[in-house]
Amino acid sequence: MSYKTDIEIAREASKQPIQEIGAKLGIDTADLLPYGHDKAKVSQAFIESVKDKPNGKLILVTAINPTPAGEGKTTTTVGLGDGLNRIGKKAAVCIREASLGPNFGMKGGAAGGGYAQIVPMEDMNLHFTGDFHAITSAHSLLSAMIDNHIYWGNELEIDIRRVVWKRVVDMNDRALRQITASLGGVANGFPREAGFDITVASEVMAILCLATDLADLEKRLGDMIVAYRRDRTPVFCRDIKAQGAMSVLLKDAMQPNLVQTLENNPAFVHGGPFANIAHGCNSVIATTTALKTADYVVTEAGFGADLGAEKFMNIKCRKAGLAPDCVVLVATVRAMKMNGGVAKADLGAENVDAVKAGCANLGRHIGNLKSFGVPVVVAINHFVTDTDAEVQAVKDYVVSQGSEAILSRHWELGSEGSAELATRVAEIADSGVSQFAPLYADELSLFEKIERIAKGIYRADDVIADKKIRDQLRLWEEQGYGHLPICMAKTQYSFSTDPTQRGAPTGHSVPVREVRLSAGAGFVVVVCGEIMTMPGLPRVPSAEAIHLNDAGQIEGLF
Amino acid sequence: MSYKTDIEIAREASKQPIQEIGAKLGIDTADLLPYGHDKAKVSQAFIESVKDKPNGKLILVTAINPTPAGEGKTTTTVGLGDGLNRIGKKAAVCIREASLGPNFGMKGGAAGGGYAQIVPMEDMNLHFTGDFHAITSAHSLLSAMIDNHIYWGNELEIDIRRVVWKRVVDMNDRALRQITASLGGVANGFPREAGFDITVASEVMAILCLATDLADLEKRLGDMIVAYRRDRTPVFCRDIKAQGAMSVLLKDAMQPNLVQTLENNPAFVHGGPFANIAHGCNSVIATTTALKTADYVVTEAGFGADLGAEKFMNIKCRKAGLAPDCVVLVATVRAMKMNGGVAKADLGAENVDAVKAGCANLGRHIGNLKSFGVPVVVAINHFVTDTDAEVQAVKDYVVSQGSEAILSRHWELGSEGSAELATRVAEIADSGVSQFAPLYADELSLFEKIERIAKGIYRADDVIADKKIRDQLRLWEEQGYGHLPICMAKTQYSFSTDPTQRGAPTGHSVPVREVRLSAGAGFVVVVCGEIMTMPGLPRVPSAEAIHLNDAGQIEGLF
Repeated sequence: MSYKTDIEIAREASKQPIQEIGAKLGIDTADLLPYGHDKAKVSQAFIESVKDKPNGKLILVTAINPTPAGEGKTTTTVGLGDGLNRIGKKAAVCIREASLGPNFGMKGGAAGGGYAQIVPMEDMNLHFTGDFHAITSAHSLLSAMIDNHIYWGNELEIDIRRVVWKRVVDMNDRALRQITASLGGVANGFPREAGFDITVASEVMAILCLATDLADLEKRLGDMIVAYRRDRTPVFCRDIKAQGAMSVLLKDAMQPNLVQTLENNPAFVHGGPFANIAHGCNSVIATTTALKTADYVVTEAGFGADLGAEKFMNIKCRKAGLAPDCVVLVATVRAMKMNGGVAKADLGAENVDAVKAGCANLGRHIGNLKSFGVPVVVAINHFVTDTDAEVQAVKDYVVSQGSEAILSRHWELGSEGSAELATRVAEIADSGVSQFAPLYADELSLFEKIERIAKGIYRADDVIADKKIRDQLRLWEEQGYGHLPICMAKTQYSFSTDPTQRGAPTGHSVPVREVRLSAGAGFVVVVCGEIMTMPGLPRVPSAEAIHLNDAGQIEGLF
Repeated sequence: MSYKTDIEIAREASKQPIQEIGAKLGIDTADLLPYGHDKAKVSQAFIESVKDKPNGKLILVTAINPTPAGEGKTTTTVGLGDGLNRIGKKAAVCIREASLGPNFGMKGGAAGGGYAQIVPMEDMNLHFTGDFHAITSAHSLLSAMIDNHIYWGNELEIDIRRVVWKRVVDMNDRALRQITASLGGVANGFPREAGFDITVASEVMAILCLATDLADLEKRLGDMIVAYRRDRTPVFCRDIKAQGAMSVLLKDAMQPNLVQTLENNPAFVHGGPFANIAHGCNSVIATTTALKTADYVVTEAGFGADLGAEKFMNIKCRKAGLAPDCVVLVATVRAMKMNGGVAKADLGAENVDAVKAGCANLGRHIGNLKSFGVPVVVAINHFVTDTDAEVQAVKDYVVSQGSEAILSRHWELGSEGSAELATRVAEIADSGVSQFAPLYADELSLFEKIERIAKGIYRADDVIADKKIRDQLRLWEEQGYGHLPICMAKTQYSFSTDPTQRGAPTGHSVPVREVRLSAGAGFVVVVCGEIMTMPGLPRVPSAEAIHLNDAGQIEGLF
């Protein structure tokens, strides 16, 4: 049996005009700013008008540590949303936007897969509604204004060796990682070392995703630290007076984007912060708007549950006053087998013992998630090669961990395949059993918070940090940043900081290499490994094959 | 008497839904891709469907050499378009899009002024429909792919000292004019000198504005020269294999944008190439689409007639097979007075002698335009301080030059003020009197073409170019580029290359400093002075005052 590709299925989609999708959520045509016929932004006026409505139920989809086998977290998010609608619930999906640049290196990421996708998938992997371009522009404006300030006399006494605000571009361009800028003589400024990150790594992106409204956005932008003086005192964005113009550039980007699933159910796709140096969730404004307009909102967080769900809980939910009513933990038989030691090439053959051996990673995530007080359902995202015995082995294991696992076949069958999962998730969400609480209190010291995550989630023995790092954390506490949550930046492949340590490692330490303050976004980034904030292109970039065919269709992007 | 500001008038505009504007041109809702409720892109399918229709009349609006007094070329373009509609003609306006970056240095440029404006003016000065962002992305992709090619072994043997493809950003950022890139060790590539231009200076912008369709766009992109080898042979964009993916990024940007005037008449706003190192006109695809859907199309070209109209005729019309039916040359009493030696502060006082003394600049433009075989009408763009005697002095002078001048009060009165001008322009356009021909034949040598422009338009005695430049031109002729037109890059303030030489200078020479080949756009740029392709911000950038007010409106942009 042969299956259609994601792009083939997406192109066959029978899309409804976006106004009809909006109507399902009670959003009038006048409150939908259309971008083409299948995308729209929800107006500020509408968001204001629903702010006192009760919230729907919030469902977080997260996953085990990613393996090369693929887990299908987004696919499950979309499939569950469609499943909820199928069983008569008013449900919406919330996911992140895709970054443009990486699509020209490797083939683009679809929004879901099989019969659980969000469309228009090509637009979503290209310019979409321009949000990331707006973020690039706002970021670039501040960059230019900082060097312009230095050029015209540097009244703020910025130490040009300590400008921490880098430039950004939404492209994989390793040549820009490290540059010397302002060369060429007096007309071009004072030469200094500088560099570019990819746009999604911008603090502006993190802020856009955490801000509750335009006023909050402007305040947070102003609070960003852009440089230090020789005496190490910080220079803020507001000292450069850029936050107002940046907010003007971000005015439309702040409005959530509405699109649809293949089954014509509403999907909000908005924001896309890095899941390592930022919190990796779609925007607060999209999630809250969805919660005001739908009875069930299915959303996801970046990477595995140790990184994505932890930040969703400890950063996004804490800061936005959200509380998940149910967590769906996605696993696959194939990923269990890989965790159990099977090579990717051998994943097609039945191997129940390997499945069992690989379940430890799943078990630890279940336990971690429960520690937040939330009920957990494991969704086994079905692959056509999975055998009944393998599926049963996962189910049995999950039951042994005090949870339950449901096989879901949304990839192959759409909502017909996810109806059972949806029914159970809705029951749990409706039951009010969730007693969500973040893992640590605001009042703990920054280092104690790091320890809570390392010990409570990663199950490490200790956190290793030298005096310089501990002093830095204490200095920030003195400056009034001690109440901020922690944003961990470590490998997504392991609970530990060693990407090769699969399963459920113990006895390890978490070494902190570096700490960074995102004073506008409102978190302290703790870097525990190599973090790449500007990817490069591979030897043969996918861009070489991307083109328009004679029918004007995009080829090679997927 | 006090007058409302442009932004006050624009905010009071009673806009029609863009679908109604499209309907006036016979464009169905399905063929309009909306961007909000007041902007739309015209579909490729629609453009294809009208390609065999007869063209409407083409009217070019140009101006005398600009003075600090302001001439109101765009205002007159819009006013004339409204005037034509007022007298019962089906007319559309075609103008360029605004560049984002410069708005954060000086206050943003309105699209017209007074009661002759195009709306939504704020959007048009910000992200609009994302065209410039798409151009930035496409340009940046090629930049990244060039350095990536070098990084992975440099099979094409690019001389890293001779990479001519710079990077771009749509921001005034002088710190990026000259940089050293690829620093930081082996993972980041081979260090080399590089730099950024502002996006509008990209050859991609010029190509988008000259391409007739997506296939032509892709071919032209592939033809761009991005670097040279040590043996001086060129490396093309197609060697890097970037043109397909760049076309995918530019797919939507190629579709013309439809908006409206304050009087709800259709306006195409599309493309915005630099008027010095490129040709400075809106896109060919917008102009041709307008000509297929309206009976009269009013468009404009950058700077004064010596630069803008010359390039419109010799580059855009030649390459796109267009021919203007009438040219409107905009002048103001105030500009005549400045040309006649009056300081800006004294412009409010009547000074008929100064007006007369300043008319020489106007006279020369009239003569130049007539040399293209086109009929010329002078539009005196009325300022409220103009006296009858001053206006009459201009009219008398224009008659003495074998042309006619009409006072137009569109700024103050909208189409009521431009009806007389519109009536006369329509008569001339309908008369078929125009016998347009470009100034020089394709077959002339490149240097001869430069001489034709310098002597025929600038009225210079000669062109000065050293052996290196002449050898370069000959080499390009040998390589098959001899048929290309010339794109002059010189000061817009004077017929000569000296910006202080106002009026109608004679006896001057045109020194050629540098020549550049835009092999994809299809012209040879001849640089006769300092050309700034990356502006800087002023000491107090306008960005410092730009912000959203409590009502969510943009303040400080205009």
